[in-house]
Amino acid sequence: MKIKKGSRVLLVGNKNYLVTVEKRQFSTEYGNFDLGELVGKSYGIGISTHMGKKFHAIGARTPDLLRKIKRMPQVIMKKDAGVIASYTGLNKEDFVVEAGTGSGALTIFLAGIVKKVVSYEKREEFQKVAKGNLEKCGIRNVRLKLGDVEEGIKEKDADVVVLDLGAPERAIPHARKALKPGGFLVVYSPVVEQVTRIRDVMEGFADIETVEIIKREWDVGNNKTRPRTRMLGHTAFLTFARKT
Amino acid sequence: MKIKKGSRVLLVGNKNYLVTVEKRQFSTEYGNFDLGELVGKSYGIGISTHMGKKFHAIGARTPDLLRKIKRMPQVIMKKDAGVIASYTGLNKEDFVVEAGTGSGALTIFLAGIVKKVVSYEKREEFQKVAKGNLEKCGIRNVRLKLGDVEEGIKEKDADVVVLDLGAPERAIPHARKALKPGGFLVVYSPVVEQVTRIRDVMEGFADIETVEIIKREWDVGNNKTRPRTRMLGHTAFLTFARKT
Amino acid sequence: MKIKKGSRVLLVGNKNYLVTVEKRQFSTEYGNFDLGELVGKSYGIGISTHMGKKFHAIGARTPDLLRKIKRMPQVIMKKDAGVIASYTGLNKEDFVVEAGTGSGALTIFLAGIVKKVVSYEKREEFQKVAKGNLEKCGIRNVRLKLGDVEEGIKEKDADVVVLDLGAPERAIPHARKALKPGGFLVVYSPVVEQVTRIRDVMEGFADIETVEIIKREWDVGNNKTRPRTRMLGHTAFLTFARKT
Amino acid sequence: MKIKKGSRVLLVGNKNYLVTVEKRQFSTEYGNFDLGELVGKSYGIGISTHMGKKFHAIGARTPDLLRKIKRMPQVIMKKDAGVIASYTGLNKEDFVVEAGTGSGALTIFLAGIVKKVVSYEKREEFQKVAKGNLEKCGIRNVRLKLGDVEEGIKEKDADVVVLDLGAPERAIPHARKALKPGGFLVVYSPVVEQVTRIRDVMEGFADIETVEIIKREWDVGNNKTRPRTRMLGHTAFLTFARKT
Repeated sequence: MKIKKGSRVLLVGNKNYLVTVEKRQFSTEYGNFDLGELVGKSYGIGISTHMGKKFHAIGARTPDLLRKIKRMPQVIMKKDAGVIASYTGLNKEDFVVEAGTGSGALTIFLAGIVKKVVSYEKREEFQKVAKGNLEKCGIRNVRLKLGDVEEGIKEKDADVVVLDLGAPERAIPHARKALKPGGFLVVYSPVVEQVTRIRDVMEGFADIETVEIIKREWDVGNNKTRPRTRMLGHTAFLTFARKT
Repeated sequence: MKIKKGSRVLLVGNKNYLVTVEKRQFSTEYGNFDLGELVGKSYGIGISTHMGKKFHAIGARTPDLLRKIKRMPQVIMKKDAGVIASYTGLNKEDFVVEAGTGSGALTIFLAGIVKKVVSYEKREEFQKVAKGNLEKCGIRNVRLKLGDVEEGIKEKDADVVVLDLGAPERAIPHARKALKPGGFLVVYSPVVEQVTRIRDVMEGFADIETVEIIKREWDVGNNKTRPRTRMLGHTAFLTFARKT
Repeated sequence: MKIKKGSRVLLVGNKNYLVTVEKRQFSTEYGNFDLGELVGKSYGIGISTHMGKKFHAIGARTPDLLRKIKRMPQVIMKKDAGVIASYTGLNKEDFVVEAGTGSGALTIFLAGIVKKVVSYEKREEFQKVAKGNLEKCGIRNVRLKLGDVEEGIKEKDADVVVLDLGAPERAIPHARKALKPGGFLVVYSPVVEQVTRIRDVMEGFADIETVEIIKREWDVGNNKTRPRTRMLGHTAFLTFARKT
Repeated sequence: MKIKKGSRVLLVGNKNYLVTVEKRQFSTEYGNFDLGELVGKSYGIGISTHMGKKFHAIGARTPDLLRKIKRMPQVIMKKDAGVIASYTGLNKEDFVVEAGTGSGALTIFLAGIVKKVVSYEKREEFQKVAKGNLEKCGIRNVRLKLGDVEEGIKEKDADVVVLDLGAPERAIPHARKALKPGGFLVVYSPVVEQVTRIRDVMEGFADIETVEIIKREWDVGNNKTRPRTRMLGHTAFLTFARKT
């Protein structure tokens, strides 16, 4: 695959830099590059700064992209996104419906895995941010829709529906209609009260389970191996259920 | 997509059943099916038992498949598999090298997401089990290799290398050679001593981090909402690093 | 201090044995003792079995006693009992009111620290078990009362009131009257719904906080240092508040 | 009990104030007190500000005192102090040896429970801070000793020895000699490497166990019940062992 003008490329060396390829100088503490040189080259090519430091130009991966997007409050963290993927068995054949889009961070992760994502957002200013983020990341298999899933979901035969909403209980019956039999509903709930409310409207779902994913970061080595002092104590409860 | 003879299908109804489609009667507590009826039909089709209970025949999803595989000791759990996917930004363009295969549970999850997996295993009896499991699950984008990655990895340009070995420190330099620049190394380490050992051989890697993923299951509702009394206290530490 | 007939003594050697001192033979896998020999001796004295194995006769400590009591369901664990002590600053001048007594496990721990405990229990069969347990442990600074604290608490000027009840919200106003200004209320709540209910009746309390104490046991050494696989996931939420 | 000049008193009202009783005005946002009025009165007495707000003058409890001491780095937290008390069955008859004193926070908690504490510290500047803290808190059953327990512990017949040192493995044989048979050794270890080192020198101890105590704080009520976002991820591993 060739690098094109406008491609998002990660320059990997003593440090990593995420750049958009265009005709311009790019300055780092290790010297300058002429980014235009990359156009037409293969991914993986080496490029040196004027100070002789070598970097490789590779296709940016999702965590690189996510580090650069414009973030709105309450982004879904990698620990939770990953478990959404593994609990639903997310794969490249899947069609996913998501609401709300937010800043699009989860959308970008899902889009890397699945065939197609439809993502609803009712707040126009959020959708605008998400749109910018998706473009910046070169994501093309997502359709952003402005709308409130509490009032209905037009899509059918979704493999997975992910809800991250203030009142998901109102959207769950619509989510059920949008799902294939055997498809997974995932609800992301920051507070316990929301979890108890949604469990009351789980008519027509089986295998319901609610989990919390807690990540502990470790400092390792130098005879000082220990969990890190500061820790993210909570993001959300994840509830999984299967349409019957 | 049509259901064929030999397809793995999930029958979704009052209970879920994972079946291989062939000409035979299948008995459940809700009555019997003639599985041969499904051949040539579209996925999602309804089918009724002789007692009139309706089930839908859908394509089995990864968690369905994983529930049915033959398991060897120390299977990588969904909580850890998911975080491997999200931390590496795993996606449908990726080429992954994995060692050891074990029973193939992680392999099956990875194969659902990525383009291709090469999976090494040095113990023939494990590889045999994994081969059976992959076939049962209809996975076709995995190449199983019998061999010890401590002695070398032939592949090049891997996006991600996952090591789940007794002495991963010996395989890490080989993993580095197999990775693209910017590619991710993931090491799954049940004990602290292994984590401290691998951190000593991380020459040529950046962004090294070690985390533990702890899953808390919750009982919800009936005025008895609480974390479950019994909990899986530990599986492994996950170390992520990026080839520079 | 001298050992008397009827004293609870811990024999500490290759194994530990909790015994009541009386004129009888006591058999162990390391040989037999004549327990009567201990009467009139000082605590700490050595005593040998007929096989020549030496043991020391010491005053049993609270964890020894607790291991031997008759237990009813839902005993308060050491991790929670300890934090009750440290958050309230429990000390030897304190007067504590507790309800319900249950099997008396927390009572025994508290009684070792404080001057006096009054412990309420409304179920006569539980009080009977607790009475037996306290006697077996030689505890003398506890008064057991049969009664329901939802209907009132007669005591005044308590330093700490501990509630472990099905509906503590009904007892909290009575607990407030029983407390000194500045005294601590502690509520032990297995489920979230109880925690949210009690927080609605905290009129006249300050510094309210709710915590969970999670204990992780570790296997250490032999190059296999790791958190234990099985873990107690939950006991209860502890709510602390200070009478104003 | 009467309040004296120099007593540490907690004024409990809309807010709590820890004061030393002496002839002076004390200003709060709720108005001023003449603290001299309290001398000779009973604990618990009410006192009003010039603005008519009533406060009660009570004996300060350990958590009040601890909030006001001068703190050195790495103070032992309440969650760990409490579990030290409950795992050892700490009680009012106990004699405890502790090293190092640090700022004396654990010393103050232990002294409230037990008969006597001897506390070693090798750094004179730390001992000086601890001395000031103990005096400020009115603690009288503690003997501070300047010295290094790696070179020996003079005391005998301790019920509990608590070590919080850089190299506790060197002090453990001395701790063993200082303990009664059946007495408890407690080691507070911030890093895993220290835990594995001490487990190698546990000759003459039984019932060895290592635990971590994790505290999760909860926000409760207003339909927003959830674990707090920020959390203290780690303080130390606690190892308990029993002298045989």
